[in-house]
Amino acid sequence: MYIAKVVGNVVATRKEESLVGTRFMIIQQVDKHENPIGNEVVAADYIGAGKGEIVLVGTGSSVRVGDVNKGKPIDAAILGIIDEIQ
Amino acid sequence: MYIAKVVGNVVATRKEESLVGTRFMIIQQVDKHENPIGNEVVAADYIGAGKGEIVLVGTGSSVRVGDVNKGKPIDAAILGIIDEIQ
Amino acid sequence: MYIAKVVGNVVATRKEESLVGTRFMIIQQVDKHENPIGNEVVAADYIGAGKGEIVLVGTGSSVRVGDVNKGKPIDAAILGIIDEIQ
Amino acid sequence: MYIAKVVGNVVATRKEESLVGTRFMIIQQVDKHENPIGNEVVAADYIGAGKGEIVLVGTGSSVRVGDVNKGKPIDAAILGIIDEIQ
Amino acid sequence: MYIAKVVGNVVATRKEESLVGTRFMIIQQVDKHENPIGNEVVAADYIGAGKGEIVLVGTGSSVRVGDVNKGKPIDAAILGIIDEIQ
Repeated sequence: MYIAKVVGNVVATRKEESLVGTRFMIIQQVDKHENPIGNEVVAADYIGAGKGEIVLVGTGSSVRVGDVNKGKPIDAAILGIIDEIQ
Repeated sequence: MYIAKVVGNVVATRKEESLVGTRFMIIQQVDKHENPIGNEVVAADYIGAGKGEIVLVGTGSSVRVGDVNKGKPIDAAILGIIDEIQ
Repeated sequence: MYIAKVVGNVVATRKEESLVGTRFMIIQQVDKHENPIGNEVVAADYIGAGKGEIVLVGTGSSVRVGDVNKGKPIDAAILGIIDEIQ
Repeated sequence: MYIAKVVGNVVATRKEESLVGTRFMIIQQVDKHENPIGNEVVAADYIGAGKGEIVLVGTGSSVRVGDVNKGKPIDAAILGIIDEIQ
Repeated sequence: MYIAKVVGNVVATRKEESLVGTRFMIIQQVDKHENPIGNEVVAADYIGAGKGEIVLVGTGSSVRVGDVNKGKPIDAAILGIIDEIQ
């Protein structure tokens, strides 16, 4: 997982059927001082994260473990909203 | 997932049998301002993306979750055509 | 797997239900001389690692093999506390 | 997947039993103009690719989807010989 | 897979139970001329590789395909000792 900031979102009308209704947020990985590191990626959001929020992002098959995402071609998801970095 | 631009395609006559009929597009990852980042990769396309289009690309085992791709050795696929980046 | 140093932790009140009770540590990969390499990531900790400790970190689906983590959207975990690098 | 050039091969007498009989080619990722990008990796070859050929390489669990590779600890394979890059 | 040189090992007394008895070697990826590339990682060794040896390393879920590693949180393993790079 890593810390990231939500920086935007993506709209795709024509897409894989199983993805209809999924929100796709653009996120930028950050370090613990919230400095950007690495490239932007697109993560599915089922938690309701808003632009500018600091979030915990999971990647790979891990994000399809839960019932909501099973059967969806998703490789990154917002797992939580981060309240505090210690 | 990430945002990418379709920049070409690849023709391979001699290949794994299960891949016959699959279109292989060359894609270049871009950031939300459509600036190129990272290396070109090759993604399977079942949506009908054309050269120059901005697309959403999924990677890893996620792209074999659907029925179409089960049993195919595919590690990246075009999941949707992006209409708008916000 | 890789060697890392625990450099902090993350608090997320609003998160995927299955993650309630999981400790999320911020770790920094290091080489065998404990020099930092690469980006910070967030790893689940079930071992009780403390800030400043040198740990062994596993990634990907491997960290969900055990019974504790099955069904949790986790892609990195602290597997052990390193006593000695030879 | 990505485009790569076969640049060599590797001989390993002492190895995991399930890998006996597998050809291991050293490949160099290239962009669509065949310029090298990234690091060399080792890919299993079941297609009969020769040194200097431009190939399509798959990675991760995708390459163990087919019957031939099931049960083999392989994380990269040559999926096809590329005839043309457009 | 990739070519790597064994450069050390790691001792961890406190660790996941399923990892007791596993040897953890520090490896450095190298190119075909044995020049170091990329970061050090830690790989499980079931073959008996020694410090200084050139080995073939596999990553990801592939290394848990065999019976020995099933159920162990391992994401990289030494698959063979390389005799010759051609």
